[in-house]
Amino acid sequence: MIDKLVGKIRKLNAPIVVGLDPNLAFIPEHIKQKAFVEYGETLEGAGEAVWQFNKAIIDAIYDLIPAVKPQIAMYEQFGLPGLVAFDKTVNYCREKDLVIIGDIKRGDIGSTSEAYARGHLGPVKVGSKELFAFNEDFVTLNPYMGSDSVMPFINTAKPVKKGAFILVKTSNPSSGEFQDRIIDGRPLFEWVAEKVNAWGEDYVGECGYSFIGAVVGATYPEQAKVARKLMPKAYILVPGYGAQGATAADLLPNFDENGLGAIVNSSRGIIAAYKQEQYASYGAEHFADASRAAVIAMQKDIASALANR
Amino acid sequence: MIDKLVGKIRKLNAPIVVGLDPNLAFIPEHIKQKAFVEYGETLEGAGEAVWQFNKAIIDAIYDLIPAVKPQIAMYEQFGLPGLVAFDKTVNYCREKDLVIIGDIKRGDIGSTSEAYARGHLGPVKVGSKELFAFNEDFVTLNPYMGSDSVMPFINTAKPVKKGAFILVKTSNPSSGEFQDRIIDGRPLFEWVAEKVNAWGEDYVGECGYSFIGAVVGATYPEQAKVARKLMPKAYILVPGYGAQGATAADLLPNFDENGLGAIVNSSRGIIAAYKQEQYASYGAEHFADASRAAVIAMQKDIASALANR
Repeated sequence: MIDKLVGKIRKLNAPIVVGLDPNLAFIPEHIKQKAFVEYGETLEGAGEAVWQFNKAIIDAIYDLIPAVKPQIAMYEQFGLPGLVAFDKTVNYCREKDLVIIGDIKRGDIGSTSEAYARGHLGPVKVGSKELFAFNEDFVTLNPYMGSDSVMPFINTAKPVKKGAFILVKTSNPSSGEFQDRIIDGRPLFEWVAEKVNAWGEDYVGECGYSFIGAVVGATYPEQAKVARKLMPKAYILVPGYGAQGATAADLLPNFDENGLGAIVNSSRGIIAAYKQEQYASYGAEHFADASRAAVIAMQKDIASALANR
Repeated sequence: MIDKLVGKIRKLNAPIVVGLDPNLAFIPEHIKQKAFVEYGETLEGAGEAVWQFNKAIIDAIYDLIPAVKPQIAMYEQFGLPGLVAFDKTVNYCREKDLVIIGDIKRGDIGSTSEAYARGHLGPVKVGSKELFAFNEDFVTLNPYMGSDSVMPFINTAKPVKKGAFILVKTSNPSSGEFQDRIIDGRPLFEWVAEKVNAWGEDYVGECGYSFIGAVVGATYPEQAKVARKLMPKAYILVPGYGAQGATAADLLPNFDENGLGAIVNSSRGIIAAYKQEQYASYGAEHFADASRAAVIAMQKDIASALANR
């Protein structure tokens, strides 16, 4: 899967992943109204609106991007009907041959991490059958509980050639509260970065990068320089571009000299593009076209920053 | 909810919570076979087996215990049908007036934590309606991303008088990898404990304890002594008793002088009791009665340790 991801990034010249994080506030009224007429103002209605919104956006942008990153919280908020929409979205993205990064940030004691890994990377055994449940290609993980919370994901991922991105330095304002605290002269996130490198060094694709990557927020470019050096084999998933405030220049420390090694996420900057002044002329009716225009602009912005460094 | 929890603990003299973590290996063959005959060896079949297993156990023990803690990973591994079983389990426990601690260990950037909080504590707004999705009473949270990943849960919990337990020192073997690393002379988990105390100090129930509690593994009693002092208002959820190796004596540092302040979890020690030599005479047919006997033994073990300290 890391080879498929890197292959698609090279072919499209687009180290970008679109975050499918459909808060109801992002969804145009006409989509919501149609869903509510059919299902009422219910969790089912919300799930239907989410799915129709996602489908239109995927149809408009799938040929431009290597990967999507659905944030499961945005679906989980609507309970079971929300997770039905998550499942439909994952399956539809697979039909479109997109690499799917499930943004689940799980992590627990060993036997529990095993269960999460089976559910999201698969397979899970039921009687004599081996079945795939949510079936993403990569997942994001939280490392606070240490190696035995992460290894079950790696062990489950290997036979199905899937992978994970592990939180190292997150993009949010308070990420430094614990991640930047100094341990033996170096911040916690550096110790996590070294572990990520160790966890992934025996599981490397033909592209030279590991199936085990890291999350490093674009909002902290100085920390990214250090993290990049500590994890030479880790692909870096970079959130924080656009709506969270980071610019294309902030992204550069995450990339290698060939413009690989990192994939940049944008969520509401793409899926709610029609709400930005820049794309307002599309109108809510043509929200998916606005998303396509925003993907093209993001691709150019990053390609240009990489070319001019 | 913290008052309801503490009230039930006092009334039943049972500071215990049963972890409803139904791996298929724990479920007796006759339950699985019945479900597979009806639904096949499918995710639906697994979900049905999980639900029937849980229901029988809840029926057998609900009058003895204040609370249950379903581990969502064990349901998520079976995808949507697994989460249907989770939802049924939560609703059934509510009918039985049990306090429900959703063991979800979530935590993400602010807007994403808000979505998880809406989905698990509620309500979530859909059009003009406010709806409850998974609707647990408490959730467990991972603090690695800092305050702005935790505060949305607290802000969502307050209006509905619900709460959270935040990971401080976890019970797993590798928990020390990051949690015990020394920062300014003290391990990371102590800094997290201080934050937990600060996050919860303005949100205290009539019982004197905060709605914001902590998770401290029974497998680390020395660390528990320190954590207890740093978080005088935090109720402590204690995993690790029984199957993970901790004894009743290991639990004592988590309790206050009145035998309150902590609630001890046992999962497979209760739900898979019929597989232990001690309860083997019940047989797989009477697995729920074995669970009842195990709850009674656990209650006595802890009450006796508290009385004799």
